[in-house]
Amino acid sequence: MDDNTETAPELQISEWINADQPVTLKNLRGRIVVLHAFQMLCPGCVQHGIPQAKKIHDAFDRKDLVVLGLHTVFEHHSVMGPAALKVFMHEYRIPFPVAVDHPGDSALPRTMQAFRLQGTPSLLIFDRQGELRAHHFGQVHDLIIGAEIATLLAG
Amino acid sequence: MDDNTETAPELQISEWINADQPVTLKNLRGRIVVLHAFQMLCPGCVQHGIPQAKKIHDAFDRKDLVVLGLHTVFEHHSVMGPAALKVFMHEYRIPFPVAVDHPGDSALPRTMQAFRLQGTPSLLIFDRQGELRAHHFGQVHDLIIGAEIATLLAG
Amino acid sequence: MDDNTETAPELQISEWINADQPVTLKNLRGRIVVLHAFQMLCPGCVQHGIPQAKKIHDAFDRKDLVVLGLHTVFEHHSVMGPAALKVFMHEYRIPFPVAVDHPGDSALPRTMQAFRLQGTPSLLIFDRQGELRAHHFGQVHDLIIGAEIATLLAG
Amino acid sequence: MDDNTETAPELQISEWINADQPVTLKNLRGRIVVLHAFQMLCPGCVQHGIPQAKKIHDAFDRKDLVVLGLHTVFEHHSVMGPAALKVFMHEYRIPFPVAVDHPGDSALPRTMQAFRLQGTPSLLIFDRQGELRAHHFGQVHDLIIGAEIATLLAG
Repeated sequence: MDDNTETAPELQISEWINADQPVTLKNLRGRIVVLHAFQMLCPGCVQHGIPQAKKIHDAFDRKDLVVLGLHTVFEHHSVMGPAALKVFMHEYRIPFPVAVDHPGDSALPRTMQAFRLQGTPSLLIFDRQGELRAHHFGQVHDLIIGAEIATLLAG
Repeated sequence: MDDNTETAPELQISEWINADQPVTLKNLRGRIVVLHAFQMLCPGCVQHGIPQAKKIHDAFDRKDLVVLGLHTVFEHHSVMGPAALKVFMHEYRIPFPVAVDHPGDSALPRTMQAFRLQGTPSLLIFDRQGELRAHHFGQVHDLIIGAEIATLLAG
Repeated sequence: MDDNTETAPELQISEWINADQPVTLKNLRGRIVVLHAFQMLCPGCVQHGIPQAKKIHDAFDRKDLVVLGLHTVFEHHSVMGPAALKVFMHEYRIPFPVAVDHPGDSALPRTMQAFRLQGTPSLLIFDRQGELRAHHFGQVHDLIIGAEIATLLAG
Repeated sequence: MDDNTETAPELQISEWINADQPVTLKNLRGRIVVLHAFQMLCPGCVQHGIPQAKKIHDAFDRKDLVVLGLHTVFEHHSVMGPAALKVFMHEYRIPFPVAVDHPGDSALPRTMQAFRLQGTPSLLIFDRQGELRAHHFGQVHDLIIGAEIATLLAG
């Protein structure tokens, strides 16, 4: 886990799916936030990242930890819009809220830029104070992720 | 394997991807044809059907056997059009030709209707005379599919 | 599949388990025989070879095809004797007959020598005439094995 | 994780393998101890428990956490003695110390009785003070085990 404790920027989102109202990191203070950044047509996300995020969502008490998806499209924008994402989420039975990263004016969407994401899948973990404490690109073993989460829960 | 030897109807296709020119079952007479019917946002297709079709494509000599994909969209049509399919094929590195089932005038596309497909994934196997000899809906073990193919190759 | 059609030597066995009486290749003429050579403490056998042999046993009609195990111990003999093998077969629920390769006088047991097995897991396939038609050392994909079996069934 | 904080009994061991000298829970005070109880011919141990124990061994710093195996034979004793276990450990490349549970005078070995193990695989986790904090029988997800370990590391 990185010892990166600078205050994290806020999510910049154009639309939320599976959420009653927009979610902010600020409003989730007091809880651990696990943010899974993915693209719906990224094989590594479908095979590894999303199943892992679903398991995290099932394994921890929602009073302590919230899993969020971030659909951060940086290629093939025209075929991975919100309508396609909603079908994907239905077919893959994604139970947690998913945010559509704000496309902004450049090829890279805004939250992706703000957090300097290197690609998908990425997994970011924020502590109860909203600070970014882990930032993984690619596959990370469940044992490691479980340990990182519990360290923040105990902190 | 069904002993279903009636002459199969022809594919009804609006567009081919990964093919130099349109493919017909008639022109493939003399070779075994394995047709994998899928939808790009169907989890069972992504997890089982497409990897199996790729393995079949790799395992047999193309002079004897041809693998074709059939993108047969019967739900969520607007987000699984040809442009999205091309991105999907690129991301999942699908090496064989894929046909877009002709949407026709009803909810079910034409080839799906003509072959009475029950859903996706489906796997159809045609013998060298172009007759439909096996029709599977859902997952079938590689051992069984390998045996069905070899039976037709030997026939 | 090798085009190795010399008449195969007979199995040289000190004991059969899961068999009412001793089995010979000669007595199985008229049926395909799939022989899975393994050692009970060989990880590749436990993880790949034995599950594949069980699937073959389940997938084909016993009138046409017989699966046999060959416990061919060439190392650590003292801890892989018949009593240990019987416990292993019980715990791993092996449903087909297993032969104990005759230890003979050298480090390598007799059937292993006669068939020039390179190690475990090995998979040998005999046609209806008792000729050895395929000899694999290591892992081979189910699709290939299914095709080889069906080719012999059709021959 | 159970909130079972009674002081744990000591291991009762007839032989250690992969250890320079006998190990006691008492001497490991100050470190987390993960004890994986298994039998070498138990399929659930081979397929799930041992790979998980190896991953735990690799994932954490040995200054903080020690993984121990406990070979706790309660059936088929004659074929799972120390000589067979040593071959098994060599073939499966088990890198951590493994204790042979003292057979005692009854069918159940002594440590198994002292800790009231229900069978194999079992996973026991002790905190830095040597207290038993988690006791699992059967398969438990890596995410949960990772979290339990980190909770004790942070405690």
